[in-house]
Amino acid sequence: MTDTDTYLLRPIGVVQSQLHRREDAPRQGDEGAPDAWLLLDPQWMEALDGITSGSEVVILTWLHLADRTRLKVRPRGEIHTPPTGVFATRSPDRPNPIGLHRVTVLEIDPQRGLRVQPLEALDGTPVLDIKPVWHD
Amino acid sequence: MTDTDTYLLRPIGVVQSQLHRREDAPRQGDEGAPDAWLLLDPQWMEALDGITSGSEVVILTWLHLADRTRLKVRPRGEIHTPPTGVFATRSPDRPNPIGLHRVTVLEIDPQRGLRVQPLEALDGTPVLDIKPVWHD
Repeated sequence: MTDTDTYLLRPIGVVQSQLHRREDAPRQGDEGAPDAWLLLDPQWMEALDGITSGSEVVILTWLHLADRTRLKVRPRGEIHTPPTGVFATRSPDRPNPIGLHRVTVLEIDPQRGLRVQPLEALDGTPVLDIKPVWHD
Repeated sequence: MTDTDTYLLRPIGVVQSQLHRREDAPRQGDEGAPDAWLLLDPQWMEALDGITSGSEVVILTWLHLADRTRLKVRPRGEIHTPPTGVFATRSPDRPNPIGLHRVTVLEIDPQRGLRVQPLEALDGTPVLDIKPVWHD
């Protein structure tokens, strides 16, 4: 009944950030995350055409340190509440640990990629995609 | 400089929809897309705990019909405008064709999964993840 195929992700680049450890990272970008570079593979630079400084974009990352087998987690720090299903949370621990990060583009460097803010992803996190923000 | 590893996606389920052809699908969910079932693999049902009827969630899908080599596309139907980089568009054609769909949960069936609306994804589209909506 469900799809049994698997699919291969090929990162388009990597995060370069001053955040190096999971315990140093804010849980969400709006909790004091720094700016960071998305260092893109040169083959994809042309696909940035149309993004400008000041653009709001959604970055998709692969949360490579995640536990892909967890079904439930406890909300952050709340040791007395019952565990919640991972699909009802923003935990990085989930079967396909894709991170969504809403950021503003600060700088575009055709030799490097994009500098964005705020980004709570750790240094070395693979970057999968960049999309325009949708407005409701 | 960039990450050379690849990562394997394992779909958690599949879309069951009355939309069967790419040319039948609205470009965005808010342009008249129907409701659809997310048929989930039984092993992940417990990870839905905390999602209720009426919840707003973001569905991540794998747009399996996409062209992963395209760098630029023309905005929909605008044949006189110059092509735009795929990262500045919502085109399904992109290196890692992950779709984001903001939907409302209509029904939860522990034997099947979730019924949601509106969903512009085609019947048979693999489902990767379910996340709570973030509010700005």
